Amino acid sequence: MTDSTATGPRADGRAHDQLRPVTIERGWSEQAEGSALISFGRTKVLCAASFTNGVPRWLTGKGRGWVTAEYSMLPRSTNDRMDREAVKGKIGGRTHEISRLIGRSLRAVIDTKALGENTIVLDCDVLQADGGTRTAAITGAYVALADAIEWGREKGFIGKKAVALTDSVSAISVGIVKGEPLLDLMYTEDSTAETDMNIVATGRGLFVEVQGTAEGAPFDKAELDRLLELGLAGTAELTRLQRAALGLEGDAIAEALGRIVS
Amino acid sequence: MTDSTATGPRADGRAHDQLRPVTIERGWSEQAEGSALISFGRTKVLCAASFTNGVPRWLTGKGRGWVTAEYSMLPRSTNDRMDREAVKGKIGGRTHEISRLIGRSLRAVIDTKALGENTIVLDCDVLQADGGTRTAAITGAYVALADAIEWGREKGFIGKKAVALTDSVSAISVGIVKGEPLLDLMYTEDSTAETDMNIVATGRGLFVEVQGTAEGAPFDKAELDRLLELGLAGTAELTRLQRAALGLEGDAIAEALGRIVS
Amino acid sequence: MTDSTATGPRADGRAHDQLRPVTIERGWSEQAEGSALISFGRTKVLCAASFTNGVPRWLTGKGRGWVTAEYSMLPRSTNDRMDREAVKGKIGGRTHEISRLIGRSLRAVIDTKALGENTIVLDCDVLQADGGTRTAAITGAYVALADAIEWGREKGFIGKKAVALTDSVSAISVGIVKGEPLLDLMYTEDSTAETDMNIVATGRGLFVEVQGTAEGAPFDKAELDRLLELGLAGTAELTRLQRAALGLEGDAIAEALGRIVS
Amino acid sequence: MTDSTATGPRADGRAHDQLRPVTIERGWSEQAEGSALISFGRTKVLCAASFTNGVPRWLTGKGRGWVTAEYSMLPRSTNDRMDREAVKGKIGGRTHEISRLIGRSLRAVIDTKALGENTIVLDCDVLQADGGTRTAAITGAYVALADAIEWGREKGFIGKKAVALTDSVSAISVGIVKGEPLLDLMYTEDSTAETDMNIVATGRGLFVEVQGTAEGAPFDKAELDRLLELGLAGTAELTRLQRAALGLEGDAIAEALGRIVS
Amino acid sequence: MTDSTATGPRADGRAHDQLRPVTIERGWSEQAEGSALISFGRTKVLCAASFTNGVPRWLTGKGRGWVTAEYSMLPRSTNDRMDREAVKGKIGGRTHEISRLIGRSLRAVIDTKALGENTIVLDCDVLQADGGTRTAAITGAYVALADAIEWGREKGFIGKKAVALTDSVSAISVGIVKGEPLLDLMYTEDSTAETDMNIVATGRGLFVEVQGTAEGAPFDKAELDRLLELGLAGTAELTRLQRAALGLEGDAIAEALGRIVS
Amino acid sequence: MTDSTATGPRADGRAHDQLRPVTIERGWSEQAEGSALISFGRTKVLCAASFTNGVPRWLTGKGRGWVTAEYSMLPRSTNDRMDREAVKGKIGGRTHEISRLIGRSLRAVIDTKALGENTIVLDCDVLQADGGTRTAAITGAYVALADAIEWGREKGFIGKKAVALTDSVSAISVGIVKGEPLLDLMYTEDSTAETDMNIVATGRGLFVEVQGTAEGAPFDKAELDRLLELGLAGTAELTRLQRAALGLEGDAIAEALGRIVS
Repeated sequence: MTDSTATGPRADGRAHDQLRPVTIERGWSEQAEGSALISFGRTKVLCAASFTNGVPRWLTGKGRGWVTAEYSMLPRSTNDRMDREAVKGKIGGRTHEISRLIGRSLRAVIDTKALGENTIVLDCDVLQADGGTRTAAITGAYVALADAIEWGREKGFIGKKAVALTDSVSAISVGIVKGEPLLDLMYTEDSTAETDMNIVATGRGLFVEVQGTAEGAPFDKAELDRLLELGLAGTAELTRLQRAALGLEGDAIAEALGRIVS
Repeated sequence: MTDSTATGPRADGRAHDQLRPVTIERGWSEQAEGSALISFGRTKVLCAASFTNGVPRWLTGKGRGWVTAEYSMLPRSTNDRMDREAVKGKIGGRTHEISRLIGRSLRAVIDTKALGENTIVLDCDVLQADGGTRTAAITGAYVALADAIEWGREKGFIGKKAVALTDSVSAISVGIVKGEPLLDLMYTEDSTAETDMNIVATGRGLFVEVQGTAEGAPFDKAELDRLLELGLAGTAELTRLQRAALGLEGDAIAEALGRIVS
Repeated sequence: MTDSTATGPRADGRAHDQLRPVTIERGWSEQAEGSALISFGRTKVLCAASFTNGVPRWLTGKGRGWVTAEYSMLPRSTNDRMDREAVKGKIGGRTHEISRLIGRSLRAVIDTKALGENTIVLDCDVLQADGGTRTAAITGAYVALADAIEWGREKGFIGKKAVALTDSVSAISVGIVKGEPLLDLMYTEDSTAETDMNIVATGRGLFVEVQGTAEGAPFDKAELDRLLELGLAGTAELTRLQRAALGLEGDAIAEALGRIVS
Repeated sequence: MTDSTATGPRADGRAHDQLRPVTIERGWSEQAEGSALISFGRTKVLCAASFTNGVPRWLTGKGRGWVTAEYSMLPRSTNDRMDREAVKGKIGGRTHEISRLIGRSLRAVIDTKALGENTIVLDCDVLQADGGTRTAAITGAYVALADAIEWGREKGFIGKKAVALTDSVSAISVGIVKGEPLLDLMYTEDSTAETDMNIVATGRGLFVEVQGTAEGAPFDKAELDRLLELGLAGTAELTRLQRAALGLEGDAIAEALGRIVS
Repeated sequence: MTDSTATGPRADGRAHDQLRPVTIERGWSEQAEGSALISFGRTKVLCAASFTNGVPRWLTGKGRGWVTAEYSMLPRSTNDRMDREAVKGKIGGRTHEISRLIGRSLRAVIDTKALGENTIVLDCDVLQADGGTRTAAITGAYVALADAIEWGREKGFIGKKAVALTDSVSAISVGIVKGEPLLDLMYTEDSTAETDMNIVATGRGLFVEVQGTAEGAPFDKAELDRLLELGLAGTAELTRLQRAALGLEGDAIAEALGRIVS
Repeated sequence: MTDSTATGPRADGRAHDQLRPVTIERGWSEQAEGSALISFGRTKVLCAASFTNGVPRWLTGKGRGWVTAEYSMLPRSTNDRMDREAVKGKIGGRTHEISRLIGRSLRAVIDTKALGENTIVLDCDVLQADGGTRTAAITGAYVALADAIEWGREKGFIGKKAVALTDSVSAISVGIVKGEPLLDLMYTEDSTAETDMNIVATGRGLFVEVQGTAEGAPFDKAELDRLLELGLAGTAELTRLQRAALGLEGDAIAEALGRIVS
């Protein structure tokens, strides 16, 4: 993963298959039931999980829970200030799209029966953006979600033995820049990529979401395969970091898998 | 593609790798510069291309054109009536997401320099929905786009020898239903799929967009590969139908490729 | 009505008192409880009726039903593309006005007691516009409405002997162009009319709505009378076409009047 | 008009063809270029005309002016408080419809060439509502408009000899209540009318707008004729009151007609 | 208060500590449960109180009532026409701010327990603006509120002996213009003030709200003290005028204080 | 200020006249021209200043600059999650009110002539809320503003010798809780305060804004005086902390006052 002899030095000196420095500040918020301030290099996303006993009306009485997410960028998280969506009075397509992606990704590792009639909302607010905000958001949101579920268990809203999380989930971007596949694109790379792909995968290494887009030239199956491989290596590394943040390292993991991360 | 001896009879009797009946009614609209009423089985989408000389302000003076798209569903295109987005006063996330997908897909085969400072807006309105509306929209919108470009050439807005379209583009859905990979899901299949994927590909068989989502269980690389293969066979068939609709069959194609579809 | 020797040849060769070719494609939608794709010449409106058992909260428990309508134009139904109202985030005055007119016109032939606590929403979406969209919408919506009521009767939501429709209803435009009264204005006539009037009338020939506007010079009682007469002849012809579309011709009408069209 | 021996005493003792007491307080506003506080019985509408030199962008350079109107009701102008449209964030259909009607009615007596490139906006705010708010608004707005045009003439924005007003305009409601045609319906009458009609007419007695709606049973030509006759008598009386408010009585009218009211 | 020998004659000849002529037309509206048309010089605000039995859902069952307010300006209440907030589709910050101030000010003299589960909404619509609209609104709204409470008592919604109003409340603006403290600024003074302050006080002379803003230079404690003193003298005078409007003069006040104004 | 022997131990052990621990992390953002992450105890606000050369259209050509602010709370900054204003599609009254207060407070220490035709937007986003968010926002925004001005000077957009900041500005809340005046209320104190006041003052100790509200009982002049005194002591301490954050301590201040803080 950190092959320092790798070919082209990227603008920040990384190898093509190297993540930016990742930090996960678990429990950053003193208000939320679960939270994490995650950074992928200069990209920083505050993820807060709000646990509510009960579900939306359309789901009431079915014995199942609900997990959803909202993504947003602070107006000056980017290099040029963006207008605030609240001021414009409407949410843009990109914001909608990413909020939905985060929600789907998290629900992929949730057993809604085991969650019971509880709702968890994940707020992912980008404090600083330098590419990869949606992948950082998913990766951090999982940590916040895991803690919110533990909170619900401690409060008795979730059964003691219920395994609400069936796996962990993380996400990373990959892309082809100047013909070379790169892992974890920062903004300057992302904006010049020929192909841009986001991969969401579980801790067990299965795909939850694969979204590849030809920004420049269309791509073939061989290129796609290389990107998928690169991405899965990245999410495996992120899985390790999530476990460390949650205090699930070494032998503890095996045991924990039977509880938190079933 | 139409192996009638195929294993499982789907609800409508199709083989697992068989498209629904596809019709493309080119030039349906007497107002638009290009148009197509496309149907994938019961799914019907009216695609209209509006050609305007000039580009949005942010693009002015760069010698490049712009192609964008808007997708919408009529309130009673579906089995249960949906509220009108205009009445609700805001566009939902799904609508935004699909509009953006259609726009990106079409721009992938556009040479904006060759298009010159012209704008083409594709309106894709779903008259009847039975799964696959976004893939039908992309496939039909390409036909409308090709005619709008011809219109622009005839009116002298686009250079006589400019090759604005670098390829054709079409899209199809694939998914895993009850463990079996299926092509071109209709609504009842789509709503029970474990994995759902939309594939956008060029006439030359390259990927423009790959969006796979685990609705039920996460999926592995082998499943992904089978879906991609199934999808590319589907888009190849759609490419043939687009060419037929545009009158580019047999020998005409080779020649046309040097003009319309470079 | 179709006096081909009539004085001034209109742009499309019609006599001053002649309708454009009218077609009513009943049951166009496979999803709606009633539907009709109606065309007045190049004007095409898709009318879909959605039947719901139950009424809005403000009407609950009064033993009466509710019929309402929403009108909208596809962005490229017109010669120049219009911005989508959903994108603008608000519905324009003209759209509101026409939606209300359609709803009032249909309610004029509904016995809400006989309808019972059921709601029917009529969606009238203009696919192509060449003048007279509101009159085509009313005329087509009646056909969709009649079928939705039959559907409700078959499903047992409406009493077997209840006569929910007290009459039929249709609408046509009339106007004074270059001093001459004309029936069923197409866009080029409508935009140059001195006086523009929409007449909504029942199958029995009574007025439901009369809306006359001086676009150029104010008009006097004599002109008004000529327009009303012309209009009633038009709605009589439309009534005949509606009955044909509903399969209520010849002797069947008398009997049907005692059931569907009381 | 004021036959005190008339048949049925209406709730307020009026004859069937009698207006409610009408007062026009010209120049009520110290800010607007023209204004009138008009009352039809308990219905009170404040009409303010705002004169701006210049026209909207789409009209620039054509040498023509523009007149438009906005209608609104104070939340507690009615018996039950209504939600404020500004708070709801959208304007209702009825408000839109009436604003458009007022604008059209006033433009029918404007010579936009003579007005020159000037814009006049009429704000008609209902302070108290008891039926007939739109007709009071049109009648009062004309007085405000006439004064705003005089203001524009005095300031030199309109040519000294330009005759911007080609006639005067007023409006009244008529309806059939319990089978009897009535003039100037108050709320209790309006809400039980079988047929409801608004008539906008010029000072010379020509129709500008005729809007009749069957609220209960459809109506025939004879009923329509009686309502039109009743309405024209009402607008003739209102014309007299407008002239009195503008100080154009007796001999002054003939002369004035050659200037203000052409 | 009316020291006619005061230094600088203000533009309208007032002394620095003199109110503009204040009129309170109590019961202006025939629809509202309480109302007052109040004027501070050319500033005119129509205040209407709507009484509803019951409270918003979030307050239900707590045995307490609710008082709230909405402020708005007619588009042509000002010298230049403002766009209508309903047309813009959103309420501006200033409108929100003043609505909240009025609501808070009135609630300061309400005993919500004594009010019982009733809601009173105060609509304050500025018909003409010349500075001090928010202070006129508070002062007039109190009168409308007092009458609405009496109405509620008469209808039996409020207990016969309940003292829902614990005091009266009024408001006035003060400011420093060209170095001199002035009472009740009109628009021309307000727009050039170095410091601008609004004081809301009870009939007993206690502060409910103090909002001072340095528009030009910051101010010190001594200036603040002079403004507060000037303001309290103004609200004392307004209290006297409110009592007169409510018919609570002379000996009647002492007695009334034990009932309406506790 | 930090009299540890003070009377009542507050919930967090502070004396009545003691600030919570204040930290100012200057330059937190790597994107903004100036920024500060400020905390007042658990309250944390991220303040980012965006510098743009040029001014809004309405100010163009007058040789003056513009400073404005937008305040917002993250949905889970509070104990219970709030709905996102962007999702609701409108900004609430409280948000508007605070944004306007921050903008006014900063403009009070800006010499817009010296700033030149440049715009600075301050985004104040509350990451965690525990009372006093608006006062923390103003205090932190000043630091971000000072750095943005320095940035503008270095880039040559502001004259080398121009003194755009005429003073510094900070803000603090004070209130009466259980009869005792307290400095810097945290949420539990704020929500039970009888009187709540926000004081904005300059580094020189003059008032910019004074906003006092009786939440419970109205207050008298003596109480007001005590609160003002307490508040000014608080802003004096905040001024010292701002200077430390900006590196303007000891002797450096005198000199700096002639440059940054005139």
